[in-house]
Amino acid sequence: MSVESNPTAPPAISPDEHRSRISAVQARMDEQGLDALFITSEDNFRYLTGFDAPVWQNLTRPRYCVLPGSGDPVLVLPSGNEIIARRTAPWIGDIRSWVAPNPEDDGVSLCIDALKAARGRHGRIGAELGRESRVTMPVRDFLRVREGVAPLELVDGDWMLRTMRMVKSPAEIALMRHVCQLVSSAFEALPSYAMRGDSEREVAAKFQIEVLRRGGEKIPYLICTSGAGGYPCINLGPGDHRLEAGDVLILDTGVSYRGYFCDFDRDFSVGEPSDAVKHAYDAVWRATEAGIAAARPGRRTSDVWLAQAEVLAEAEGKEVNREGFGSGRLGHGIGLRMCEPPSNSPIDDQVLIENMTLTIEPGLPFFVDGKDGPERKILVHEENIVITPDGGELLTRRAPREMPVIE
Amino acid sequence: MSVESNPTAPPAISPDEHRSRISAVQARMDEQGLDALFITSEDNFRYLTGFDAPVWQNLTRPRYCVLPGSGDPVLVLPSGNEIIARRTAPWIGDIRSWVAPNPEDDGVSLCIDALKAARGRHGRIGAELGRESRVTMPVRDFLRVREGVAPLELVDGDWMLRTMRMVKSPAEIALMRHVCQLVSSAFEALPSYAMRGDSEREVAAKFQIEVLRRGGEKIPYLICTSGAGGYPCINLGPGDHRLEAGDVLILDTGVSYRGYFCDFDRDFSVGEPSDAVKHAYDAVWRATEAGIAAARPGRRTSDVWLAQAEVLAEAEGKEVNREGFGSGRLGHGIGLRMCEPPSNSPIDDQVLIENMTLTIEPGLPFFVDGKDGPERKILVHEENIVITPDGGELLTRRAPREMPVIE
Repeated sequence: MSVESNPTAPPAISPDEHRSRISAVQARMDEQGLDALFITSEDNFRYLTGFDAPVWQNLTRPRYCVLPGSGDPVLVLPSGNEIIARRTAPWIGDIRSWVAPNPEDDGVSLCIDALKAARGRHGRIGAELGRESRVTMPVRDFLRVREGVAPLELVDGDWMLRTMRMVKSPAEIALMRHVCQLVSSAFEALPSYAMRGDSEREVAAKFQIEVLRRGGEKIPYLICTSGAGGYPCINLGPGDHRLEAGDVLILDTGVSYRGYFCDFDRDFSVGEPSDAVKHAYDAVWRATEAGIAAARPGRRTSDVWLAQAEVLAEAEGKEVNREGFGSGRLGHGIGLRMCEPPSNSPIDDQVLIENMTLTIEPGLPFFVDGKDGPERKILVHEENIVITPDGGELLTRRAPREMPVIE
Repeated sequence: MSVESNPTAPPAISPDEHRSRISAVQARMDEQGLDALFITSEDNFRYLTGFDAPVWQNLTRPRYCVLPGSGDPVLVLPSGNEIIARRTAPWIGDIRSWVAPNPEDDGVSLCIDALKAARGRHGRIGAELGRESRVTMPVRDFLRVREGVAPLELVDGDWMLRTMRMVKSPAEIALMRHVCQLVSSAFEALPSYAMRGDSEREVAAKFQIEVLRRGGEKIPYLICTSGAGGYPCINLGPGDHRLEAGDVLILDTGVSYRGYFCDFDRDFSVGEPSDAVKHAYDAVWRATEAGIAAARPGRRTSDVWLAQAEVLAEAEGKEVNREGFGSGRLGHGIGLRMCEPPSNSPIDDQVLIENMTLTIEPGLPFFVDGKDGPERKILVHEENIVITPDGGELLTRRAPREMPVIE
């Protein structure tokens, strides 16, 4: 067994970059009237500090970061986790710990103390409360913290961070390009290692092995589904169905490298695709082109949606319908989370800025004759891009113009 | 590239078993004075319904399950997810959906309606509020639901589910045994594929490839760390250090199969281990034996802790100290979550019942001479067991009596 070594792989985010993030966030906090941020979720924690370890999988022990309006963050960690911080966030000096699990007080009083000490002129603390956020601690403990810091008020600080995180640095873009490229290679090679008779589970295992061999680090997300003449849904994990002639197969994956994600898919036909599948593939391929071209600074996510929706509507012989927008969006932000704001949706309207990263993800529903009448299928395409003055620049390697075939 | 097919692998949990879980939970709800449960987290959702898809990685779209005091659950899902439910939880008929993301109302009003309709004589709803729980939706939306269902009161219903989930069915134990066995094989083969000069990252990739080849489905957790004469901490992901003579290497992994986890580790010496490492390995091996023997119905998690702590204290030449219990516990529950209650801890005291599943996880700190003085190391051992009338029965294959060596 061999894995590829890749000495040219880009480095993880540096402590200097974390320090400059902190300065930028603190300036924005003051504008937003926040004395401190109270952070509990893996991606925000990592964005601010660099803290990196698999421990977030263990939900018994929460971990906390308090960022005051000036100065370095305070980390409140279960004992043992200090070594992770010294190794992955060595620039942070103030680490407080408790022996966990302690059902009486799992870090709550340490958080209250750190938040009270950060009190400033605003009287407000930004927590992970709003849209698309997650508090990664028991809600009962969160409410205890809220009560314990009164009269300091907890308001949403997550959306402020999300909007800052939308725009990536050169180091972040390099990491995302790296993971997009290695996963592109694993997809391009798929017809050489997946074959008729393989179950979806076997194909999923082989694909993951390819990703790992090429340097992918974590594969938290893998769709792998197939069906005669098309698949019914983009959200299914692998099952026991074995590939046979006439099947359409999709894999859609979120792979991370030094914490940064790709999120894209590839479609394959087992044997020659039907005319209906060719038509759908052609439509989503062209819709992707239109979405990439529309993704320019100053335009909006709703424009990126519309550019794709027009191609899809034409292929369906319909008018664009801003109300009935299917699965809600045609792509989204990406970074330290696989799915970040914004959404390429008619109701989003985020203005695009240079160095934002997006997925472009059109899908076309179509019908095939099934044994009990017409069956609804969908074909979804996806690429990852970064916004440049000239439009979207691919981070992935573009999917083939014609649908790849598993012979 | 080949992956092993395994026709004797146990099946996923059946709809019949989900139905009987629902009946048992509903009986307990009535005892606890709960009219309904409001469920948002992947593992509780799957435990009650069978709903299974990779979509939980996407935090933009939450999903909800309302379990009334009698009758089937109601699923509130983002549009598109209905197909997942029909495929993986086909026995559930009442599915309500909305087009997500919708920042104005991401399923909140649908949840409020379903919860109000479940109102019964108790006036209380069990939510995921307490110890070791996670609400997997934005807290702002959770508070809107809480306000919207008033005067119905939201109280913790998670701990009730957790305690029921501690005791596993034969089908659950078969799935856990299956994943423990295949990961045991990947660990046993490690000295044949990991070698001096490999980086920790390369070893981690090779190990994951072995797990996937042998039928492991997901690998959300992988510790892989090493150091001269010992490693400093059990919680580090793989780094760039290359294995050399005198290193001690640990891999600790949470792998899942049909949703059920193993969580155990193996230690390796690169070349012959030092006397200090041999001493530590012998102590944690014997502490594990003691923990397994102590894990009998009617005894408590604190007894399982004490049996291990006595061996460790003796090896350190110390008295057992119930206050200073290191990392807080020596093992924990396991199932659909990698770390579930209870904890093998002096402050836990959960009474053991036949068919509970536990990890037995002793660790021994020790010191070696470093270039700047004594360096603290730790050696951690771990096995997974099921409680039987005769004591703990291994689900894993027991680690070797002598520390395995990478030549």
